[in-house]
Amino acid sequence: MSLKGRDVITIRDLSRDEIDETLAAARRLIPYAEGSKSSRILDGKILTLAFFEASTRTRLSFETAMQRLGGRCVTIAEAGASSMRKGESLHDTIKMLSQYGDAIVLRHPNEGAARLAAMVSDRPVINAGDGAGQHPTQTLLDLATIQEAFGTLSGLNVVLLGDLRYGRTVHSLARALAVYGNEIVLMSPPGLHLPDEVREQVDQLGAKVREEDQMHKAVREADVLYVTRIQKERFADEAEYAQVAGSYRVDNATLMGAKPRLIVMHPLPRTGEIAPEVDSTPHAAYFRQAFLAVPVRMALLSLVLTGKVP
Amino acid sequence: MSLKGRDVITIRDLSRDEIDETLAAARRLIPYAEGSKSSRILDGKILTLAFFEASTRTRLSFETAMQRLGGRCVTIAEAGASSMRKGESLHDTIKMLSQYGDAIVLRHPNEGAARLAAMVSDRPVINAGDGAGQHPTQTLLDLATIQEAFGTLSGLNVVLLGDLRYGRTVHSLARALAVYGNEIVLMSPPGLHLPDEVREQVDQLGAKVREEDQMHKAVREADVLYVTRIQKERFADEAEYAQVAGSYRVDNATLMGAKPRLIVMHPLPRTGEIAPEVDSTPHAAYFRQAFLAVPVRMALLSLVLTGKVP
Amino acid sequence: MSLKGRDVITIRDLSRDEIDETLAAARRLIPYAEGSKSSRILDGKILTLAFFEASTRTRLSFETAMQRLGGRCVTIAEAGASSMRKGESLHDTIKMLSQYGDAIVLRHPNEGAARLAAMVSDRPVINAGDGAGQHPTQTLLDLATIQEAFGTLSGLNVVLLGDLRYGRTVHSLARALAVYGNEIVLMSPPGLHLPDEVREQVDQLGAKVREEDQMHKAVREADVLYVTRIQKERFADEAEYAQVAGSYRVDNATLMGAKPRLIVMHPLPRTGEIAPEVDSTPHAAYFRQAFLAVPVRMALLSLVLTGKVP
Repeated sequence: MSLKGRDVITIRDLSRDEIDETLAAARRLIPYAEGSKSSRILDGKILTLAFFEASTRTRLSFETAMQRLGGRCVTIAEAGASSMRKGESLHDTIKMLSQYGDAIVLRHPNEGAARLAAMVSDRPVINAGDGAGQHPTQTLLDLATIQEAFGTLSGLNVVLLGDLRYGRTVHSLARALAVYGNEIVLMSPPGLHLPDEVREQVDQLGAKVREEDQMHKAVREADVLYVTRIQKERFADEAEYAQVAGSYRVDNATLMGAKPRLIVMHPLPRTGEIAPEVDSTPHAAYFRQAFLAVPVRMALLSLVLTGKVP
Repeated sequence: MSLKGRDVITIRDLSRDEIDETLAAARRLIPYAEGSKSSRILDGKILTLAFFEASTRTRLSFETAMQRLGGRCVTIAEAGASSMRKGESLHDTIKMLSQYGDAIVLRHPNEGAARLAAMVSDRPVINAGDGAGQHPTQTLLDLATIQEAFGTLSGLNVVLLGDLRYGRTVHSLARALAVYGNEIVLMSPPGLHLPDEVREQVDQLGAKVREEDQMHKAVREADVLYVTRIQKERFADEAEYAQVAGSYRVDNATLMGAKPRLIVMHPLPRTGEIAPEVDSTPHAAYFRQAFLAVPVRMALLSLVLTGKVP
Repeated sequence: MSLKGRDVITIRDLSRDEIDETLAAARRLIPYAEGSKSSRILDGKILTLAFFEASTRTRLSFETAMQRLGGRCVTIAEAGASSMRKGESLHDTIKMLSQYGDAIVLRHPNEGAARLAAMVSDRPVINAGDGAGQHPTQTLLDLATIQEAFGTLSGLNVVLLGDLRYGRTVHSLARALAVYGNEIVLMSPPGLHLPDEVREQVDQLGAKVREEDQMHKAVREADVLYVTRIQKERFADEAEYAQVAGSYRVDNATLMGAKPRLIVMHPLPRTGEIAPEVDSTPHAAYFRQAFLAVPVRMALLSLVLTGKVP
């Protein structure tokens, strides 16, 4: 089992053993991510970041991860990069990029773009989000956050809150949590339920799944409260949005009666879904989750580019 | 006294001893800035450059400074970086960025943004300009230029010429020059005078300050002629602007009768304020001033990140 | 003979011996470009990439080349970089940039910009394309591709196909091929012929030059088929463009009867000029040509910055 030279397009490209290995590597890399230890294991390696859609935090955390291990980056961060504007196909763009660096991190607005890129590229491709599709390193860092808080990825009660229909990150997370054996509680506004096919997969993977519509009841039993953004554009009018967003907002009152060990997660950026007052409670895990993006991406880059970690 | 781990938001965050130490370090780093000596003192360090407003020369000189000492950079140089467009607060953006690199250089259109960032960030913040507010490394490089030319920062006659009202750099510089004991001569068009509160501070710091309206008289006594851009947007109409701009333009005729050792400075970019013919006179110090941005920023980064310089 | 510290504005700035030396260096650097060997010969060197016009592949391949040899980059990749928007002259921008890094790679929309920059800059300037002007590293990588395929740069039949009037790359390539002694066959739509002055230079340099209007005849005798993009904006209407573009399109049928060793080249990006089916034939050399951009630019950067290669 080795990730060396492998494409990582969806979290399902990784076996449970490979996920465990990556998360263990990420834990060992935390002091390197903080800058208290240093390594040059990726010295001489070049990572090409092709961001055909802006995603500042994903880009910065990959660039930080690569450079913390001594590697170098070349970056396209233009929505309409010039070659694309001249009518070049994604095939040709990826073929060209694969002539330059040792691996490609791709962010693209179109679902399926990363899989296509992997077929074309002579070098490994890591999917950093393709439209409504996959974003496997987000799932890995979500798992890393849960594992760090509880010392396990199994037997937990995880509430997924908010837009479960269009929220890409929760689909992959729900499947991964099912594989590890957890109870999943779904809480979403009308029209933003988890898609049937995702729910069926999660059921088949053996998770206990149920819906809940009482926030206080959900919170009381939760180990993890995973909050997602509810996007204004999904609603017919402002008033309807405001009402729904308001009833899915997490603040200190919402968290009354929660288990002491409950963690609140969010893929960020948040707008109003979590009140700032939550930041100073021991429940707030979302900035730690943002930090863990670095060691998780360090682990994956190191394993894909060299087959090992420092 | 150590700058290690310190925020640098305004020049007043540095004591006179700390300014002296930084300038001395910058002098020692000149051969490293020129590339004739090399150092890896910042090997393994990551600098996050968050430019929420374009400022090419400030960004490039910080990136050059960091990399000349072996450090690495991750950069946001998008006016409307994606997370901000999604409605993220500055608090959250900075909190997130402080999870990644070892320090943050912030450029922001809003006054006070850098101080807020410093309160939020777990890592040191260096202000690279926040609206009409501060830009302390600009002041340091202005001082470095004067010190290199005269071997001292005291006892000089410094003429500040042009827009002294909105020109951010001259406010900090005037205060710093006052601390070191200099004569400050103000020459500005009507409506663009030095703000009263700045003038009062400069007076209280013990500088001799006076206004002058005769260019030739000012030039004749000056050791330093610090020229700033007069912006068209400050004037009611084009004709008024053209007349004022014309009478504050420095060319070889203006410099007739100047002391041989007079230096002409400008924070750049210039538009028409200094005629190109001045470039080839020994008075022109503005490109040297641009160069000194590199060793000054090297010194500050090295002191903030490690507490020492090569 | 040394390229150390030299400006490279047009391919004519290099003697035939210097071109031969650069190409030989590029061949030696191929394993370094692939990442199978590594070098830090440019450790401590900073390259300033000033792209005042987008050109993603040129920028990325220069950044990759610099970093593959241990050097660092600072990059302006904004069409309207901020200083320029404030009305700064190209003179001042270049003068400022030359204070920072050890060399400048310039891409600019205006013909002649690179020569002007070289006059102003205290550091070497490499032209990465200036409007309808020159792009010498493109010519070098075109030559490297031909040389790798045939083991020689002389005695070949090279067909230049498509827009020979506005296509900048073919003018420099035609001259260089003439110097090395080749037969050049021109095939272009009406109105897009090679400019008279270029044709005269090529004649005077001693090349056999002729026009051809039968695709099959041209292909049958060719060693190299160099295809360029025909731009829609050159035509009065869509229908005329579609007809011309169609008759200059290269597909497997076009290549029936070609010599086995024929190579098809294209500076990329292509739109419809070469059918994807050609990619899997042994004739397709355009992605190899894209790859060779890296070792060629590595060679030139190494020679200009240090006078030697690893």
